[in-house]
Amino acid sequence: MTLIKQLANQDEFVGFYLLKELVVRQTNSTPPKDYLDIMLCDSSGEISAKLWDASTTDKEAFFPMGLVKVKGIAQTYRDRLQVKIIQIRPAKEEDGVKLTDFIRSAPIGPDELIHTIQRVISDIQDQEIKEIVSYCVAKVEEKLVHYPAAKSHHHAYYAGLAYHMVRMLELGDFLCRQRPFLNGDLLKAGIILHDIAKPEEMNAQLGIVSEYSTLGKLLGHISMASQWITEAAIRLDIDLESPKVVGLQHLVLSHHNLGEWGSPVGPQLPEAVALHHIDALDAKLQMVEDALLTTPDTEDWTPMIRGLENKAIYRLKY
Amino acid sequence: MTLIKQLANQDEFVGFYLLKELVVRQTNSTPPKDYLDIMLCDSSGEISAKLWDASTTDKEAFFPMGLVKVKGIAQTYRDRLQVKIIQIRPAKEEDGVKLTDFIRSAPIGPDELIHTIQRVISDIQDQEIKEIVSYCVAKVEEKLVHYPAAKSHHHAYYAGLAYHMVRMLELGDFLCRQRPFLNGDLLKAGIILHDIAKPEEMNAQLGIVSEYSTLGKLLGHISMASQWITEAAIRLDIDLESPKVVGLQHLVLSHHNLGEWGSPVGPQLPEAVALHHIDALDAKLQMVEDALLTTPDTEDWTPMIRGLENKAIYRLKY
Amino acid sequence: MTLIKQLANQDEFVGFYLLKELVVRQTNSTPPKDYLDIMLCDSSGEISAKLWDASTTDKEAFFPMGLVKVKGIAQTYRDRLQVKIIQIRPAKEEDGVKLTDFIRSAPIGPDELIHTIQRVISDIQDQEIKEIVSYCVAKVEEKLVHYPAAKSHHHAYYAGLAYHMVRMLELGDFLCRQRPFLNGDLLKAGIILHDIAKPEEMNAQLGIVSEYSTLGKLLGHISMASQWITEAAIRLDIDLESPKVVGLQHLVLSHHNLGEWGSPVGPQLPEAVALHHIDALDAKLQMVEDALLTTPDTEDWTPMIRGLENKAIYRLKY
Amino acid sequence: MTLIKQLANQDEFVGFYLLKELVVRQTNSTPPKDYLDIMLCDSSGEISAKLWDASTTDKEAFFPMGLVKVKGIAQTYRDRLQVKIIQIRPAKEEDGVKLTDFIRSAPIGPDELIHTIQRVISDIQDQEIKEIVSYCVAKVEEKLVHYPAAKSHHHAYYAGLAYHMVRMLELGDFLCRQRPFLNGDLLKAGIILHDIAKPEEMNAQLGIVSEYSTLGKLLGHISMASQWITEAAIRLDIDLESPKVVGLQHLVLSHHNLGEWGSPVGPQLPEAVALHHIDALDAKLQMVEDALLTTPDTEDWTPMIRGLENKAIYRLKY
Amino acid sequence: MTLIKQLANQDEFVGFYLLKELVVRQTNSTPPKDYLDIMLCDSSGEISAKLWDASTTDKEAFFPMGLVKVKGIAQTYRDRLQVKIIQIRPAKEEDGVKLTDFIRSAPIGPDELIHTIQRVISDIQDQEIKEIVSYCVAKVEEKLVHYPAAKSHHHAYYAGLAYHMVRMLELGDFLCRQRPFLNGDLLKAGIILHDIAKPEEMNAQLGIVSEYSTLGKLLGHISMASQWITEAAIRLDIDLESPKVVGLQHLVLSHHNLGEWGSPVGPQLPEAVALHHIDALDAKLQMVEDALLTTPDTEDWTPMIRGLENKAIYRLKY
Amino acid sequence: MTLIKQLANQDEFVGFYLLKELVVRQTNSTPPKDYLDIMLCDSSGEISAKLWDASTTDKEAFFPMGLVKVKGIAQTYRDRLQVKIIQIRPAKEEDGVKLTDFIRSAPIGPDELIHTIQRVISDIQDQEIKEIVSYCVAKVEEKLVHYPAAKSHHHAYYAGLAYHMVRMLELGDFLCRQRPFLNGDLLKAGIILHDIAKPEEMNAQLGIVSEYSTLGKLLGHISMASQWITEAAIRLDIDLESPKVVGLQHLVLSHHNLGEWGSPVGPQLPEAVALHHIDALDAKLQMVEDALLTTPDTEDWTPMIRGLENKAIYRLKY
Repeated sequence: MTLIKQLANQDEFVGFYLLKELVVRQTNSTPPKDYLDIMLCDSSGEISAKLWDASTTDKEAFFPMGLVKVKGIAQTYRDRLQVKIIQIRPAKEEDGVKLTDFIRSAPIGPDELIHTIQRVISDIQDQEIKEIVSYCVAKVEEKLVHYPAAKSHHHAYYAGLAYHMVRMLELGDFLCRQRPFLNGDLLKAGIILHDIAKPEEMNAQLGIVSEYSTLGKLLGHISMASQWITEAAIRLDIDLESPKVVGLQHLVLSHHNLGEWGSPVGPQLPEAVALHHIDALDAKLQMVEDALLTTPDTEDWTPMIRGLENKAIYRLKY
Repeated sequence: MTLIKQLANQDEFVGFYLLKELVVRQTNSTPPKDYLDIMLCDSSGEISAKLWDASTTDKEAFFPMGLVKVKGIAQTYRDRLQVKIIQIRPAKEEDGVKLTDFIRSAPIGPDELIHTIQRVISDIQDQEIKEIVSYCVAKVEEKLVHYPAAKSHHHAYYAGLAYHMVRMLELGDFLCRQRPFLNGDLLKAGIILHDIAKPEEMNAQLGIVSEYSTLGKLLGHISMASQWITEAAIRLDIDLESPKVVGLQHLVLSHHNLGEWGSPVGPQLPEAVALHHIDALDAKLQMVEDALLTTPDTEDWTPMIRGLENKAIYRLKY
Repeated sequence: MTLIKQLANQDEFVGFYLLKELVVRQTNSTPPKDYLDIMLCDSSGEISAKLWDASTTDKEAFFPMGLVKVKGIAQTYRDRLQVKIIQIRPAKEEDGVKLTDFIRSAPIGPDELIHTIQRVISDIQDQEIKEIVSYCVAKVEEKLVHYPAAKSHHHAYYAGLAYHMVRMLELGDFLCRQRPFLNGDLLKAGIILHDIAKPEEMNAQLGIVSEYSTLGKLLGHISMASQWITEAAIRLDIDLESPKVVGLQHLVLSHHNLGEWGSPVGPQLPEAVALHHIDALDAKLQMVEDALLTTPDTEDWTPMIRGLENKAIYRLKY
Repeated sequence: MTLIKQLANQDEFVGFYLLKELVVRQTNSTPPKDYLDIMLCDSSGEISAKLWDASTTDKEAFFPMGLVKVKGIAQTYRDRLQVKIIQIRPAKEEDGVKLTDFIRSAPIGPDELIHTIQRVISDIQDQEIKEIVSYCVAKVEEKLVHYPAAKSHHHAYYAGLAYHMVRMLELGDFLCRQRPFLNGDLLKAGIILHDIAKPEEMNAQLGIVSEYSTLGKLLGHISMASQWITEAAIRLDIDLESPKVVGLQHLVLSHHNLGEWGSPVGPQLPEAVALHHIDALDAKLQMVEDALLTTPDTEDWTPMIRGLENKAIYRLKY
Repeated sequence: MTLIKQLANQDEFVGFYLLKELVVRQTNSTPPKDYLDIMLCDSSGEISAKLWDASTTDKEAFFPMGLVKVKGIAQTYRDRLQVKIIQIRPAKEEDGVKLTDFIRSAPIGPDELIHTIQRVISDIQDQEIKEIVSYCVAKVEEKLVHYPAAKSHHHAYYAGLAYHMVRMLELGDFLCRQRPFLNGDLLKAGIILHDIAKPEEMNAQLGIVSEYSTLGKLLGHISMASQWITEAAIRLDIDLESPKVVGLQHLVLSHHNLGEWGSPVGPQLPEAVALHHIDALDAKLQMVEDALLTTPDTEDWTPMIRGLENKAIYRLKY
Repeated sequence: MTLIKQLANQDEFVGFYLLKELVVRQTNSTPPKDYLDIMLCDSSGEISAKLWDASTTDKEAFFPMGLVKVKGIAQTYRDRLQVKIIQIRPAKEEDGVKLTDFIRSAPIGPDELIHTIQRVISDIQDQEIKEIVSYCVAKVEEKLVHYPAAKSHHHAYYAGLAYHMVRMLELGDFLCRQRPFLNGDLLKAGIILHDIAKPEEMNAQLGIVSEYSTLGKLLGHISMASQWITEAAIRLDIDLESPKVVGLQHLVLSHHNLGEWGSPVGPQLPEAVALHHIDALDAKLQMVEDALLTTPDTEDWTPMIRGLENKAIYRLKY
């Protein structure tokens, strides 16, 4: 089965793919004819596809986020490859393909990620901090298994958010050993809580964010997470003005560093400074790694990456 | 009794003043001698004063925020007027002067301001919104009587915060009548809540802010007020994700309009847009009015005002 | 008759509309065929429409800014509704429809707006200020009846500019009563003069701006209005350097507040500070109100609004 | 006679200087004693000087902008050289010194500068443009002989404004020959008019600006000059909307290039683009030249120059 | 033969043109048909052209950067003129047309430009500076004959870079005469070296830049040129830390003035300040001149020019 | 012996300190008297000290960067502690104190730091990269032992630069293990080379930078290091345009990320992205750690830290 990333101009192919988006459109011909404008994806990337002369049956047979079997031909159109569909049908049970094989996922399985996060929580020595973290994680437990970390910016795939957390926890652990003046409990808690409200800020399925939620637009995930800590403290009967509660809220509120990046206050605890930079380092390096992975091996340069000041990344070979 | 604002170079005077700040310093002479570096203020303004050759008794007799009787002479030093103290003693009970006569205050009395705010709250028609507002106001009830609205930016005097609220409520009322699509309950609540956490963000006495609190620095009054709404909703058993709770939090979070001005989200409700602009209009006009009031009548230009892009204001006469 | 704002996908309808824009285009078919690409509008909004297979007669029958009778069907294309025209003909006299019924207009009639502005002018107590204002208003008297306040930013409809003035005058009147230190004559004059040169900065018809004028591009409406005051003073024999003339020019020049927003000087009179904020408040709230009015009631969010930092507005319901 | 620029630490000297500024101050000793804090200058630079133990006679004998004979000693204080005055008296007629020998002046005499400017005006071929330019120049004729071009930014000395004009005219002449598509009349007129209102924007004496005028603060020299063109056109009966009048106003209004630098519109005529860059080039090179001239030859680096992004200039030697 | 700049809607024409770009595309018809999407250019401008119903022969007959004979018709499509091709064939030798007649070129021939640059180099009086300049120029000798100065910003045509240098040298020469404190050797060398690495930063043919080189993206032409000076000094055995070498490197490194424009250091030599402003003046005026030349004479306004703050230029006529 | 950090108001003490700066000043008394204005420091911090009534002997006895024995009293002056010196004399050999005990140093000894750096270099697997790194390190070998990493921003102490490198190398090593797609040779080389020219950009002694060098001001350490790589490649006969040379230069040039922070190009290699963020993370955390170390334990807040957006750091205790 041909991976999308491997398709080249004029390739004919047959394979299973995830039909990610679907719109019925009309051609400009007279009279206009209906066609299906489709986005196919698999774990290696995604590609636009057209089914010309779509019949009424066609228009009723397909739905977004369903698996399909496609016979098609890849063609270059306006400098980008797209697929002209020759035949297409929904996948059947006997085809033996499953959804999760067709989406981009974190390189570590979701169960292992969640397990790691739970283990780190159980290692937090301060009981109150541990309970607050647990309370907040419990609010999104189900979604944390599969949510991406962002719509497209970075870690935009299945379990991307949990993967981002785990990598940051590894880095945080290293830094606490390198610089013992850092408070490990606070840093661990800050890493786990900093993006914990993202699953409520966005609506996502199979690692793909379709839109921001109304709550997400009106409050933003930073204020939401900070309020979850308030909620946790009240429910757990912990003083709202205690250093622990205020400290955790500060870590969450300040992790974007600057007002123009969404933080109402700047980092003023050692662990807050560390948290911001661990977050930045992990997100940026993941953007680089993901861009390289989804760029065909024949290309020296990745596409431009918005999160890296619109720079492309070069594969230096020597 | 001479008001500070009326003093001119070489004026000799006797009067009562509030000793606002006091530092013991040494002259550069050999051997250096102690002198008292004092800030005197009354309701018309403030002025720096020196007591040369301070005796041990002098150094023990005076405290910040106490009333004093001063005989002195006004002298120009580096383009600014200052006072050379000839005689000074603490005020006594029989002098019959009281602290509140010597501080700058809002032009409307604190009781009337609080009464107006309470009346507006009682006019809120939605029960849940009314209760949330009451809950938050109750947290700072005592301080609201006398707190300033800011350290120096605007309304920086006794009851300045309540005065700012009342003026904004008047303007909000006018706008709701001019544009009936605005929700009066939300706008009133937003005006009362937008700066409600300021008394916990700053430490102030007699309308004078001495410093920001640790809570204020780590969280900021915007996030604090938003969390008070969370707290109120939990205590009052109102759904945390209900439109009312989210709407009030949005009003508070967005009222500085931009991230670089401290708002983690921008205004996205009609009342949030109104709130931001009512706040700006009232604060800026008050800066203008206060600058004109504290500038000697003989000056055509006020000093430069930081909150007005560092512009001075001109008294146009025709 | 169906209002454009009420159309939904697959609706068939017949009605009269204003043909606002018209271009003859070719399809991509071989050989390409001509079709008419049309913008229809009525008082509730506007929508793109296509007449496929346009005959030579069709191409000659229609003109921009003419009324037409249309039978059509609404269809979703690329997430936006558009109209496929089944039949179209120019409106005839016996149809009894008139242009002004099909354009967006200020909610108050132009005559009443002009009357209000004239009444305010006659209330100005200072004779010279009154005469300067009258002189400048007279320069655009005819256009003031119907000009919009901007190309698309805000109040972009029939009599939008006069409506903006009137609303600002109401707000100015309220503020002068709330803060008696403001000079009412100057503030009224400033409100009327601040955008008075806009009708010469832009070319508009029926409330729709087609383009900026050469004068508008080379000088800008702010400098133009300031020069009209110069011109008025000379013609009325008032001293060009008198406080009144300079004050009015300052109000006009500074009303955008910052250099990057087009003001060569910042506000330095109390009335100039007030003018800037009254202008901002009224323009922003009108953007909100207009966006809500032209967004279908079924939508919770308006489109993004450029003048509100690209934020959309949410209809909060509880 | 020792030039100020040549003074070194511990030098004793006698000479005539211009007493530019004078303030009576008190020492911190007990009791404080009066001393004179003086700024001395000559054509090579300026230096701070103190007369300790000033008698009443001393305090009455000296005035700003008067010539004095000084015996003093140069001493380094806080990394800067200053003068301790041993003896000082006002200059007398028989001393044979004159004010203009003690101020910084343009390297070309004012008469020659004015003559050059008048000659260029007479070379303008279009009668209306010539008359408008003459009208505006006539408004400041007397001041143009001696005004500086700015308070401190560049050309801040006697006849600095006229000198800036003349140098720009030379450069403009070169460019018109290099690029014949430029309109020489417009460019000449633009160069002469672009800063023509500066003498009314600032108050200056002997090339030293003491402050901005009220007119200057409220309108700015750019808008003032543009209005002078309006005035000229009316007085000369030239159509206010004619291309010549609008073109000249555009040149003046746009010559600072960007809104944040004070221009309400950006350059949109070829000559306006040229004018902005000629102005920048001449001002920046003059800052460099003046900084090098007033920096002691023993220093490799000039002080930091605000107009050059706070960079210092280096004397490269090889 | 009709120049592209002169074409108007519905013009039929026959002529020779340079086929600058070529893509095979499909129509949206069913089944889709191939057509050629072509960019034609001549010395007066460029225009998009379509060959509908392209045969296999057609698809193989044409290549980018080849000359073609075209019979076509100009048609307005989406407010822009494009060409519908009726007939097209490659140019033959007997047609007697040559490539260089169809590209935009500097108004002075490349040989004369190179000759002028070489003459200026030979006039440099300091031997070491002269040799370093010669070494660097020799690295791009062949390309300097024909390279443009930029991809599209300014001087984007055949020999544009050499033309930019020559014009700047003329201006530099004028300034050295006007201000003798400038070091002519340094300024000449700086002008020649400042963009000398551009031919290695970009890949260009016939004055048209197709893309940036990998070296250009990773290092940028400013750092490259600076390193060429290092290389020259080592090869010529000149001390790397000598004032001459450091001075030349400083001129190159600082010529974009600000970090955000690509300069790692700001100008700190008089010649560096001059170089930056000469570069800006020449580039901006050339943008104006080129925009006017390629805009049809019937248009009063050029298109918007990115390098001029997105302003258009107006042809003022009086 | 009392550490400077432990001094409190009115403490009398005797001890050895490093006299870091010394200026002779005059008091404002009449006649003015000389006194010594001194900066004392030890490994815990620094403090201003005055020797009143300095005799000629005193003025000749002391030099910056010499050790002294001081008897003094700590006094608060304008909110800061300073020392009034009672007795002072230069340290003698028999006192047995040595300079390096009195300066702030990296927490790891310089020999160990250099040894670590050399070991990492020897671990680089690619011969050419290893040789280029060695060549550049050899240029500053002596200075690398003791240079600080910056004037005051971060790691501003003895061996601060080597310490910064070593910590970054540890972090780089961790990241290469966490993300194997990173090229370890390039990242190690980039970390060692990124600030390698700093010792030539600044003049420093005992970890204290006195000023920037002329070379540093004119070229900047980023361009200098990049040119050292050019020099190394030429001397080692490695192709200047080879991927290794260009890659190393890119790492150095891009490590400040943005033009406004001094990088002429942005990071476009995975290792360049990593290098920038490792550098930022290490520098910021070191600022935090150093600020906490030098702030008296009795203070909850450190002073504001410029490199952390002017935020202070809070010691959270629970």
